[in-house]
Amino acid sequence: MADSRCLAIDAMGGDFGPRITVPASLDILRQHPYLKVVLCGDQKHIQPFLNADKESFAGRLSVLHCEQSVAMDEKPGSALRNKRESSMWKAVALVKDGTAQACVSAGNTGALMAISLFQLGTLSGISRPAICTRVPTSRGYTYLLDLGANLECTSRQLYEFALMSSLAAISPSTNAPSVGLLNIGVEAIKGRQEILDAAELLQADPSINYIGFVEGDALFSGVADIVVCDGFSGNVALKTGEGVAKMIQGLLRQTLSESLLARLGALLMKPALKRLINQVDPAQYNGASLLGLRGVVVKSHGGASVEGFAKAVEVAVVEVEKDLPILIESRLADKSNQSEVFDEK
Amino acid sequence: MADSRCLAIDAMGGDFGPRITVPASLDILRQHPYLKVVLCGDQKHIQPFLNADKESFAGRLSVLHCEQSVAMDEKPGSALRNKRESSMWKAVALVKDGTAQACVSAGNTGALMAISLFQLGTLSGISRPAICTRVPTSRGYTYLLDLGANLECTSRQLYEFALMSSLAAISPSTNAPSVGLLNIGVEAIKGRQEILDAAELLQADPSINYIGFVEGDALFSGVADIVVCDGFSGNVALKTGEGVAKMIQGLLRQTLSESLLARLGALLMKPALKRLINQVDPAQYNGASLLGLRGVVVKSHGGASVEGFAKAVEVAVVEVEKDLPILIESRLADKSNQSEVFDEK
Repeated sequence: MADSRCLAIDAMGGDFGPRITVPASLDILRQHPYLKVVLCGDQKHIQPFLNADKESFAGRLSVLHCEQSVAMDEKPGSALRNKRESSMWKAVALVKDGTAQACVSAGNTGALMAISLFQLGTLSGISRPAICTRVPTSRGYTYLLDLGANLECTSRQLYEFALMSSLAAISPSTNAPSVGLLNIGVEAIKGRQEILDAAELLQADPSINYIGFVEGDALFSGVADIVVCDGFSGNVALKTGEGVAKMIQGLLRQTLSESLLARLGALLMKPALKRLINQVDPAQYNGASLLGLRGVVVKSHGGASVEGFAKAVEVAVVEVEKDLPILIESRLADKSNQSEVFDEK
Repeated sequence: MADSRCLAIDAMGGDFGPRITVPASLDILRQHPYLKVVLCGDQKHIQPFLNADKESFAGRLSVLHCEQSVAMDEKPGSALRNKRESSMWKAVALVKDGTAQACVSAGNTGALMAISLFQLGTLSGISRPAICTRVPTSRGYTYLLDLGANLECTSRQLYEFALMSSLAAISPSTNAPSVGLLNIGVEAIKGRQEILDAAELLQADPSINYIGFVEGDALFSGVADIVVCDGFSGNVALKTGEGVAKMIQGLLRQTLSESLLARLGALLMKPALKRLINQVDPAQYNGASLLGLRGVVVKSHGGASVEGFAKAVEVAVVEVEKDLPILIESRLADKSNQSEVFDEK
């Protein structure tokens, strides 16, 4: 990171709060010598996890004491009205006032989206923010969005999701990341009207590497770097995938303990099986981006480990390095100067 | 089966045609001594697979020669206009004229739905047919519908899907099968409006064992006997599940051959692993019901084996034994006499 950038961490968010968020933040400071971190939360809960470390990061680590925190099951509307002194609110506020360039929270998704949208607003040219995460595939990972911020989407929104994630994604090759639209068939005539229309918008934009429709099974085979869909379908696909993986893991565990032979076999295979489980573990891709806001906001899984939360912070670091919000806005400005393609649909 | 019932088999459907459909039909005749079967298709392609068996089922097995067949990639509209002499068309026609009580095809789904809908029509009180299949779960299986016949659904349609599948499902207990609505959260206030409205309709019907919203991950954990959703989401969930299972199987195979130790372990575990793979193999639940038509129509996977196709035929046999279309219609008639609950939404 060129100059000194700052991250605001909602230290109270998640199932475990400071016990996870503080050590993860210290790890990040160790790895990124130019980075600053502000831990937002209850001073007396944060302090025990800082120990002597605070001294060693002098000038790079500070605590912003907050009286409140947002509960994991709190309704977004209630958080918006009643939690203006919360660690989540204050972390986003630091992005709003320019003190921090990104905010990371393991708190409740709905509240984080509502508070971020309220304080930061959307980028010019973006209708609504979307939630984007990576899912493990047999070739590595695929970016999937939206995951639930928008239950129904227009063709224009789907187009915006593709554009934003194309800029956010780290492409494994030198080409622009490939984008597929989630559909129930790969034929051009099949699917909901907004998806057919979005396909036309994507085809008309040479800056997006659009590869056509993909089906649910393609999501985990890695045929596209990015898969775009409405938030309802994306949420169903993500959770279904997690459910099947959990079911197979459970059955596998049961199978491995079934007989003496199987138990012996399992013992021999342990290192190999462990690598397999790590490979499909969603935790290694922890960190969902709230794309389309006037600032970088990343949501960590609520149950993340120290290592997992640090992965989510890394997602924020990459987006800050890219100046992602500026990048998206300028790409959109170019587009609207170039053509009126957006107004067609 | 009490008296002599008859099944019409589209012998030409699927990736392999008579090579699969004829031996599977013969197996069914062996298992159900009161059942009759009409094989619809090209006489000269069917004959080689009949051999001496035809004699032994004298009076219970006949061949209806058809000049045409529907291609696996044929557009439904084209099949509807140009394939009235096809094995698929004729098999459905036998149900229409009362010669057969059910039709089973491994042919293309869109064409089968279009041809069935055109010839048989929908049951009184049903807006549109839905496609319903079973998916393997860690506890057994769950019925999932719709799988793609209806990309968008009203609350009334979702209610009808629940009602039809409740009657079609074989419940593992003496209770009515439990029904969940697929949603992106379990809270009553979350989700698309048609889903929230469908929940009210289901709650108001004491004949349906409605248990509330379920998320994608619950689909494969088996918390509900039946999961109801629109055809787009159902298709995404089904294919995503298949995709994850395939990815994990592939990675597992790779893992097991990685090292000498792992290979030895895999050898010891082979019987246990084989049982696991069978347990999650969707082929064991082959046979998707086209619910809501004036007749029983079951779709087999196109690539099904003899054993797999026979499973689809068994689904048809069960629905014929139940007189499922009559059962659905009379339940709906009772409802509309009892109350005006349907007109509220």
